[in-house]
Amino acid sequence: MSIQPLPFEIKDFVKKSESLRMQYRYLDLRSTQMQYNLRLRSQLVIKMREYLCNTHGFVDVETPTLFKRTPGGAKEFVVPSREPGRFYSLPQSPQQFKQLLMVAGIDRYFQLARCYRDESSKPDRQPEFTQVDIEMSFVEQSDIMTLVEGLLQSSWPLDKHPLSTPFQTITYETAMRNYGVDKPDTRFNMKLMDISHVLQSTEIQFLKSALNQTEGSIQAICVPNGAKHFECKDLEMLKQVAKTQFGQELSTVLVKADGTLKSALRKLLSIPATEKLLTSTGAKPGDLLLISASTLDTVRPLLGKLRLRCAELLESCGIPVRNPSLFHFLWVVDFPLFLPKDDDPWQLESAHHPFTAPVPDDRHLLYSQPHKVRGQHYDLVLNGCEIGGGSIRIHKASEQLYILQNILKEDPSLLSHLLEALDSGAPPHGGIALGLDRLVSIMVGAPSIRDVIAFPKSFRGYDLMSQAPEYVSEEDLRPYHISVTWPAARNEGGGGEEVNRRIMT
Amino acid sequence: MSIQPLPFEIKDFVKKSESLRMQYRYLDLRSTQMQYNLRLRSQLVIKMREYLCNTHGFVDVETPTLFKRTPGGAKEFVVPSREPGRFYSLPQSPQQFKQLLMVAGIDRYFQLARCYRDESSKPDRQPEFTQVDIEMSFVEQSDIMTLVEGLLQSSWPLDKHPLSTPFQTITYETAMRNYGVDKPDTRFNMKLMDISHVLQSTEIQFLKSALNQTEGSIQAICVPNGAKHFECKDLEMLKQVAKTQFGQELSTVLVKADGTLKSALRKLLSIPATEKLLTSTGAKPGDLLLISASTLDTVRPLLGKLRLRCAELLESCGIPVRNPSLFHFLWVVDFPLFLPKDDDPWQLESAHHPFTAPVPDDRHLLYSQPHKVRGQHYDLVLNGCEIGGGSIRIHKASEQLYILQNILKEDPSLLSHLLEALDSGAPPHGGIALGLDRLVSIMVGAPSIRDVIAFPKSFRGYDLMSQAPEYVSEEDLRPYHISVTWPAARNEGGGGEEVNRRIMT
Repeated sequence: MSIQPLPFEIKDFVKKSESLRMQYRYLDLRSTQMQYNLRLRSQLVIKMREYLCNTHGFVDVETPTLFKRTPGGAKEFVVPSREPGRFYSLPQSPQQFKQLLMVAGIDRYFQLARCYRDESSKPDRQPEFTQVDIEMSFVEQSDIMTLVEGLLQSSWPLDKHPLSTPFQTITYETAMRNYGVDKPDTRFNMKLMDISHVLQSTEIQFLKSALNQTEGSIQAICVPNGAKHFECKDLEMLKQVAKTQFGQELSTVLVKADGTLKSALRKLLSIPATEKLLTSTGAKPGDLLLISASTLDTVRPLLGKLRLRCAELLESCGIPVRNPSLFHFLWVVDFPLFLPKDDDPWQLESAHHPFTAPVPDDRHLLYSQPHKVRGQHYDLVLNGCEIGGGSIRIHKASEQLYILQNILKEDPSLLSHLLEALDSGAPPHGGIALGLDRLVSIMVGAPSIRDVIAFPKSFRGYDLMSQAPEYVSEEDLRPYHISVTWPAARNEGGGGEEVNRRIMT
Repeated sequence: MSIQPLPFEIKDFVKKSESLRMQYRYLDLRSTQMQYNLRLRSQLVIKMREYLCNTHGFVDVETPTLFKRTPGGAKEFVVPSREPGRFYSLPQSPQQFKQLLMVAGIDRYFQLARCYRDESSKPDRQPEFTQVDIEMSFVEQSDIMTLVEGLLQSSWPLDKHPLSTPFQTITYETAMRNYGVDKPDTRFNMKLMDISHVLQSTEIQFLKSALNQTEGSIQAICVPNGAKHFECKDLEMLKQVAKTQFGQELSTVLVKADGTLKSALRKLLSIPATEKLLTSTGAKPGDLLLISASTLDTVRPLLGKLRLRCAELLESCGIPVRNPSLFHFLWVVDFPLFLPKDDDPWQLESAHHPFTAPVPDDRHLLYSQPHKVRGQHYDLVLNGCEIGGGSIRIHKASEQLYILQNILKEDPSLLSHLLEALDSGAPPHGGIALGLDRLVSIMVGAPSIRDVIAFPKSFRGYDLMSQAPEYVSEEDLRPYHISVTWPAARNEGGGGEEVNRRIMT
């Protein structure tokens, strides 16, 4: 029995702020929903383990979390050691270890691995998270995909709509063409349509100049009942997204009940062009067409984003679009192996990570046109969220070295232990990692992964219950040979005059 | 296929140094023994999970490893955050979280928890290790003990001698009296014997003065066949241990084949005293008596240590003492709740941790004679190794506050979230943590826990394969507002003139 009145009553209808919930997490966890979430997670996990261990002979191997900083690992927390200047690093995934385990003859490895990522800026990220980490020897892409389908099917909660397998598979190219995104929500249609041919001979200036660009295209999505339900401010918001996030103009075409158009384009379109537009997009009275024209790599993501916004808008009007009790799993395959770097488009970087093997048919292009090489990478998407990704790995040291040295221009000495391991007789291998927190949050319909983690951190990475991270005294830092550099006194010029302020503890 | 010859052949009879094994761990893991160790560990763990989850309805809950530094947590690694001066801490155990989960209504919690301890000095420790962490609401000590017995029995490997339950239970007092240690190896006898009464009227000076002390005692162990097998240098070694580690003289009495004694004490003992000594200790021709006289808290640990040394010595002579295929589990209970501090014997500290509840019969002594209070703590010992420990916890905020403030003299504000939680209606609860690495290493007969961990650290905390911990550039440390304080330039006087040397990366 409590002596004091509790900070809030444990009743579902009592609204409380998230910060209060986090401060008194031990009370918040008493709620029906949080009990359900944590217990479902535990059940899911034991069933996954049984499937992997008992049905398929996987070995559960724990790998270290005090490891070496990976090259360019800007998102890795450091942990000072008692050796001056030397730091461990909390790894973002057991990637290197799982590959080393394949070389070590553990032909089927899995682990529910705690991973760390210092990404304070992104919303709904946690500095520590859990992934279902899997690696197998002597497998091809389809073997891993079949295994994961069985894994999810066998561990799926009995109170949810059962899964049917195999999951749908589409290529990266198809995903981008139809949905404008590499993790499409396939619970609803509203696909992107290329209407360049409809407006090929247009004299409308901005459409014309778009078509004259390399990979220029005019694309549209048709929002069923959009004209009927959306208000002016909704259309304004959609235009605003196009403008601010993509620097593009968005044309809206409302098909009125009588079949006539309401649009700035209306007077610029001939009657045959208008008819062709309606026929080819299938727009009916009451529908809304969103039209954008630019290069493919701009217009597709733009309309992909607006497609999701329109779904939300329709749902907020009471029109069902995405059935929340359905779970649409989708494999996306044939990703490009390399992408141009944001800050230097002439330099390639790995689309996922440097250990992904090329698609066999494209292997010869590595040495001539690496930007055209597809990787043996597969993403698992659930209801428009990426919940897992994996690949067949490079198992030949020479190929790995070539990619690191000649394509990615990275110093291979930082991965010398992995290259040596590949050179000691490595079987062909591949694997996958599933984000457990995200998967569970979608399963239970939670708005945030914080709702499926017992003691999550806040947006800013704080534990609001215990006030971690906390100040630590200079004395306690001394064994680690570090001192705090207070920003007020930080000398950006790189001089040595940093002032170490006394820490209050 | 490997192009290069491997650094060592993967054959059991090929001897290789441990550092070479660690550097090429992915090759070392290919050995029959390491494959067996890792696969047995995986099997053990899934069976434990099934027992806890499926048979007993436990909920597997993951708790954070980026937490707040605990008061006096000198062995906790710190993790700098992006907030200047604020650090996370890698916890030594999920103790606080498991108790909070009880308050949160997760009445049966378990987790295979990764824990961290920065204890570079101790041999055969790892900076990260795994414990089977269990907590239950509405339980008594015997409930936890029965659960753990069932857990081990049900998950015990089929190729090992099966376990019989219940395990033997002895009190801390009995353990110290009979074995001189709180984690006795009960696979063999050679118990400590109090022979004070035999020599009560002795005139031998050092025995007499020992008996005159408070809690002074003369104690002996009888080593069967010790006189027959031990050499002079063995006896010298035993005396050396007594001298250097305990500052005590050790008397050796060899019973020769004809029943006469060989000992410095021989001439000082009367014939009746000699006979009484042999009768009361049961020493037979060929046996060796080790006799020490001092206060109980010195003579017991001393003979406890020598008992183990004698077992090793006998085994090295080919005499079987401890059957390596037997597993003797033992509960040790009724520990003192508090012990005098090493550096200030007038001040008490927790024998285990401040959350352990007193034995109900002793509760009233908290307020008068706290040093006499026994705790509801239980240790699980296997073949002389402590492999687990747990307790019934304090679930009343007022009692917890009293112990923190009045007995331990600690600042309760550091645990205010736990005290608040206890005050919000906490059920009686208790739990245990089992050291998984140690348990598995004993099961497979490995000399070190490094043999049951896939990628362990060396004695000095290094990963010899990847060279972690590694140097990190000043640039990479900048977001964390820390800089390295190089020891050569360290100013012990506490001034501000620390020099930050340029780091090579």
